[in-house]
Amino acid sequence: MTRRLRMAMIGGGPGAFIGPVHRIAAELDREIELVAGVFSSEAERSRAAADIYRIDPARAYGALDEMLAAERAREDGADFVSVVTPNHNHLPSLRAAMQAGFPAMCDKPATSSFAEAQELAGIIARTNLPFGLTHTYTGYPLVREMKARIADGAIGTIRKVVVEYPQGWLAGPAEGKQAEWRVDPARSGAGGCIGDIGTHAFNLAEFVTGLRVTRLLADLAAVVPERELDDDATVLMQFENGARGVLLASQIEVGELNGLRIRVYGETGGMIWKQEDPNALIWHRIDGTTQIVRAGDASLGEWAAARTRTPGGHPEGYLEAFANLYRDFAAVLRGEDAPLLPGIADGLRGMAFIQTAVAASRDGAGWTDFPEIEA
Amino acid sequence: MTRRLRMAMIGGGPGAFIGPVHRIAAELDREIELVAGVFSSEAERSRAAADIYRIDPARAYGALDEMLAAERAREDGADFVSVVTPNHNHLPSLRAAMQAGFPAMCDKPATSSFAEAQELAGIIARTNLPFGLTHTYTGYPLVREMKARIADGAIGTIRKVVVEYPQGWLAGPAEGKQAEWRVDPARSGAGGCIGDIGTHAFNLAEFVTGLRVTRLLADLAAVVPERELDDDATVLMQFENGARGVLLASQIEVGELNGLRIRVYGETGGMIWKQEDPNALIWHRIDGTTQIVRAGDASLGEWAAARTRTPGGHPEGYLEAFANLYRDFAAVLRGEDAPLLPGIADGLRGMAFIQTAVAASRDGAGWTDFPEIEA
Amino acid sequence: MTRRLRMAMIGGGPGAFIGPVHRIAAELDREIELVAGVFSSEAERSRAAADIYRIDPARAYGALDEMLAAERAREDGADFVSVVTPNHNHLPSLRAAMQAGFPAMCDKPATSSFAEAQELAGIIARTNLPFGLTHTYTGYPLVREMKARIADGAIGTIRKVVVEYPQGWLAGPAEGKQAEWRVDPARSGAGGCIGDIGTHAFNLAEFVTGLRVTRLLADLAAVVPERELDDDATVLMQFENGARGVLLASQIEVGELNGLRIRVYGETGGMIWKQEDPNALIWHRIDGTTQIVRAGDASLGEWAAARTRTPGGHPEGYLEAFANLYRDFAAVLRGEDAPLLPGIADGLRGMAFIQTAVAASRDGAGWTDFPEIEA
Amino acid sequence: MTRRLRMAMIGGGPGAFIGPVHRIAAELDREIELVAGVFSSEAERSRAAADIYRIDPARAYGALDEMLAAERAREDGADFVSVVTPNHNHLPSLRAAMQAGFPAMCDKPATSSFAEAQELAGIIARTNLPFGLTHTYTGYPLVREMKARIADGAIGTIRKVVVEYPQGWLAGPAEGKQAEWRVDPARSGAGGCIGDIGTHAFNLAEFVTGLRVTRLLADLAAVVPERELDDDATVLMQFENGARGVLLASQIEVGELNGLRIRVYGETGGMIWKQEDPNALIWHRIDGTTQIVRAGDASLGEWAAARTRTPGGHPEGYLEAFANLYRDFAAVLRGEDAPLLPGIADGLRGMAFIQTAVAASRDGAGWTDFPEIEA
Repeated sequence: MTRRLRMAMIGGGPGAFIGPVHRIAAELDREIELVAGVFSSEAERSRAAADIYRIDPARAYGALDEMLAAERAREDGADFVSVVTPNHNHLPSLRAAMQAGFPAMCDKPATSSFAEAQELAGIIARTNLPFGLTHTYTGYPLVREMKARIADGAIGTIRKVVVEYPQGWLAGPAEGKQAEWRVDPARSGAGGCIGDIGTHAFNLAEFVTGLRVTRLLADLAAVVPERELDDDATVLMQFENGARGVLLASQIEVGELNGLRIRVYGETGGMIWKQEDPNALIWHRIDGTTQIVRAGDASLGEWAAARTRTPGGHPEGYLEAFANLYRDFAAVLRGEDAPLLPGIADGLRGMAFIQTAVAASRDGAGWTDFPEIEA
Repeated sequence: MTRRLRMAMIGGGPGAFIGPVHRIAAELDREIELVAGVFSSEAERSRAAADIYRIDPARAYGALDEMLAAERAREDGADFVSVVTPNHNHLPSLRAAMQAGFPAMCDKPATSSFAEAQELAGIIARTNLPFGLTHTYTGYPLVREMKARIADGAIGTIRKVVVEYPQGWLAGPAEGKQAEWRVDPARSGAGGCIGDIGTHAFNLAEFVTGLRVTRLLADLAAVVPERELDDDATVLMQFENGARGVLLASQIEVGELNGLRIRVYGETGGMIWKQEDPNALIWHRIDGTTQIVRAGDASLGEWAAARTRTPGGHPEGYLEAFANLYRDFAAVLRGEDAPLLPGIADGLRGMAFIQTAVAASRDGAGWTDFPEIEA
Repeated sequence: MTRRLRMAMIGGGPGAFIGPVHRIAAELDREIELVAGVFSSEAERSRAAADIYRIDPARAYGALDEMLAAERAREDGADFVSVVTPNHNHLPSLRAAMQAGFPAMCDKPATSSFAEAQELAGIIARTNLPFGLTHTYTGYPLVREMKARIADGAIGTIRKVVVEYPQGWLAGPAEGKQAEWRVDPARSGAGGCIGDIGTHAFNLAEFVTGLRVTRLLADLAAVVPERELDDDATVLMQFENGARGVLLASQIEVGELNGLRIRVYGETGGMIWKQEDPNALIWHRIDGTTQIVRAGDASLGEWAAARTRTPGGHPEGYLEAFANLYRDFAAVLRGEDAPLLPGIADGLRGMAFIQTAVAASRDGAGWTDFPEIEA
Repeated sequence: MTRRLRMAMIGGGPGAFIGPVHRIAAELDREIELVAGVFSSEAERSRAAADIYRIDPARAYGALDEMLAAERAREDGADFVSVVTPNHNHLPSLRAAMQAGFPAMCDKPATSSFAEAQELAGIIARTNLPFGLTHTYTGYPLVREMKARIADGAIGTIRKVVVEYPQGWLAGPAEGKQAEWRVDPARSGAGGCIGDIGTHAFNLAEFVTGLRVTRLLADLAAVVPERELDDDATVLMQFENGARGVLLASQIEVGELNGLRIRVYGETGGMIWKQEDPNALIWHRIDGTTQIVRAGDASLGEWAAARTRTPGGHPEGYLEAFANLYRDFAAVLRGEDAPLLPGIADGLRGMAFIQTAVAASRDGAGWTDFPEIEA
């Protein structure tokens, strides 16, 4: 038997949303098993999480250094770490873990600033260890199909991209663990909505088009009174081939849940995908025909087909998309190729996006060059 | 019997799209009858249209002046004119007709420039004749219901408006009568897409919210090579109460037909309407409940209820919405009240919108004040 | 000019739903004009309708015979009649009108019994006058497209048909003019729901497949207490080629408006159309691809293309579908061909359907042969 | 730590669809871990599956008896078995496992005949061991919400149930492991489509309504030439309170994937759920209002809320619904209550449904009483 890979989690303590999601995603295909963790910066809370995750209490550690040392020492120690803390703790966690020799998966955005992301890139380069970033939406089979078909010329030269990410859960005062840190600059970084979900939208746009943004114009605002970080953002973008883009992200659109939607139009077609209806892809062709591509269809390419687990009509969703990233990461750890797994290049671009958008908006919304990044 | 009102058409000759639409809309409720017209600036073509419209050949005139004189002289002469020419002929047509004493309905946008619209406003003021502008989408019953519910506080204070108007029919070279004049500055005015459909979106946003735009930032482009007028537009807007708005209009999004969609979010709710699925209105409330309001529902207010002709589930569409404007106009001519009929105030604002957006975009997309208009 | 055809209406007085619908439909394309009517069996009410329909009061007659005589005598008299009374008055109205030489359009179902329909067929044969039956749903462009594509082999040999017609408006006690006559055997005939909407569903199934039903099994019930006629029906059907069919019709499904939906499956594909979303047709192919065919698409065949008035994305609905039947009828009156217009053959089959279903259900729901009809 | 429960699988060898699904579902919430299995009746193939499932090769057994003995003997032996073989092997597997003291989860339908199900019921009664049946669709949060709201009076007394289960994957010749056994009476039992998916639909109807079927009328057919078992079924049902029901199941409707849909109508409302769009529930009320209830809404009751893992808008699907049944089963094993887990009572009724439908259809489709079952 090829054994399961062993994962240690950093973050994800009691009340966390994304920690359990990483756990489910990592284990879904039985290529990975959660074995250890330092789930909170408070030792007590961290140890209490052993019960939540049903792991060996001896491996729910009180501190990161302790965990890294102990897991290094065990014969059956963790093979990699998964970082799921609030943004400001990504870099310290990754620095310690990677310097201790652990490959890492990390929740997005990569860090809490572009400068931090550059430091992280240096660490990854020096340690030469596998690194993955959970831009979840790139894990959806039909997003990968969309990328493949666009690359294959299905819509011709790209002219226009519209990506929207409406949410409404921060329309009122931010209450609860999930909301509080997201509106706190000390824990989120300079971006609020633009960092939390804008980066997903930005990443998705570059992912499906295969094009890089070269300039942008941003208008961010904190709509809810007394909020420090933006909760509503509009960004105009220009892509490297001259294509035009619009990115809308909001967390104050009451009633919107997680309505990420991307539409890409080229000279000869258009393609549309919606996260809340993720198993269908609309494909318009300039001859006036429209096709619905569905998960499970025989016509799907290998990228999508290899990342579905059930026949068409048995909906797979967010957790399965997330699991596809861990499947990619497991493949990398096993020495295989996983070209679609987001990594530090995406992380750098995401952090550059936040920084550029925040700065551009602050200075009056003129067109601003996207920084050159060597990845 | 209260007799039908008699309409004379200006424009709408062979090959026209919008002329026959006005004819159907005007006659749908049997309050109005088409009796005469000068359907083309070429006398021959105008007379030939008698057959298309099945009117008395003697009343298909060769020239506008001729028609106005003849219809004035007849005892059963036209009660009003309907102007459906390309934009650059709106003002001359309206000037002649209103100075001859005819009330007028006019296709949008009102004129081909803001200056012309101001002149038109003067004519209307001086003649003191009824004037209506066919911003069709305000005629949909559920758009009116949306306006009524928002005014009634259904979503609280408005914070955000997103209005999108994607089309794809000008993604290729502009061919055919409909396409050609729309991409020609001499006939369309300074705006392409922004004038043809952007004004509809702008008007709809102000209509349903009851708020005026005070500033905007615009980015317009001619995406198709060698095109002179914009065919793709993004506009950021600020409303008088501080609410934020985004307007997207495009005619190069392949596969999009007439996808006008408006979403309005307030402090306590959100409301969404889509032109291609016009008989449903989504209403989100901050308590987490979502309602679908449907045409024909017993809960509809009088504005919507009075403008549907069939029970729920018997779809009414574009022509019926258009007819609702003519019904409003007929009411005005009969001395009744029709507060929702778009008029010259909308026309002035629409032309100011085009002018401001075009200028702002040309000068580098900074925030630009919307002109003060006395209407 | 080719003049408009002149229509006289029988039925459709104050409070009527379907009378005004016929009026709008007939006039929509300006091929027909309503000029006269006997709108009620009460002379007073009939005359009062002149104002509703805005016709010459002198031509709102107090009695049918009076109207037929007067209109015959006028040089500009009616060219045909339109019968929109409750079912039990169809035959007497048509008998008188056709014997007086008037072609006729008639609302469905044709009569209030199969025997009456046979008598009507005799009258039509003897008078040799044009006759049309308003099975409205056959007028939708995409229904016609569906018929054309199926005939063309798009889904192979038909194996299965599912047609559903859910409504909910009779879930409570029947109140109001529309409801009352529909639940009264004296005015509706032997069928309630099965006659009112079941016949539409049956007709649609035969229309789009081009196949005739040869046997059926029916289960009808009056669900609402004290109701005399059925308000809920399930019918199993066998088609002439051996294909299986299911027809569901109900008027007690709370919240359903007019949810007619037909799905046809063959050896190599499937096709789906929904009345409440009438401008799209789903086409599944056995290779696993799915196409959305939309009204206005360049790929539409002539049957559909010739019966749309607006470009794609400008929704046409129920009234426009209805108008297509009048356009067909006008074509017939002008000596042209209109092969898709439902006529007495459909009427006979519809009445046979009601009679067979009611009898089969009463006798215990066994399989029953559909009567042979010579049309 | 409360340790994970240990599962041994029976069936699910190379090429299986449902085995891996059970594995994912069981482990998703980390309450259960797959530790052993006899994955095939061929020893070689069974052992080879250790690699597929990444379990200890020593615990991939060559035969059922061997596994039961070995796992009994281990201190860390399996806590229960999961039976995922073709139908004809359910009873022998369960008999052996339960007599050896293992609680059991079993794929549906329970057995391959009603008589077998009765024998199974006896075994369960005698061993007094927990038993669960994976009627997956009862695991969807919004199905549970639907049941809760209906029980709570949201639609009043139930009058009508329509449950449809269209699939198309057996429209051609049955090819592949999944298809072959389903069309083989020796492995499937007397029902084809009616057993494979009809039982799901039947179970769902009884589950959400809380009502039992007392009579039915069935029409089953093998549409594809030379097929021995039914592939298309229509069943009329009567519920214990007199409500009417219709069940449509088909596996020859080309293009349909897994279109299970249930609609329930009562005196004061209607409720609709669709498996392919599982995170929304439509609720019509007789006052003409319609609500969309969404997964994650604050208004959800405890049954639904306790069985979702992500916030609204992060789609959960088939695997998560399946996992909810295992979560219920784990609760039972831990001594907690799980009133919604389907068990042998559902199994008996499902097998009675198949037997009654097959017999009723064979004898000419008359109304047939549903057998009384003592559970």
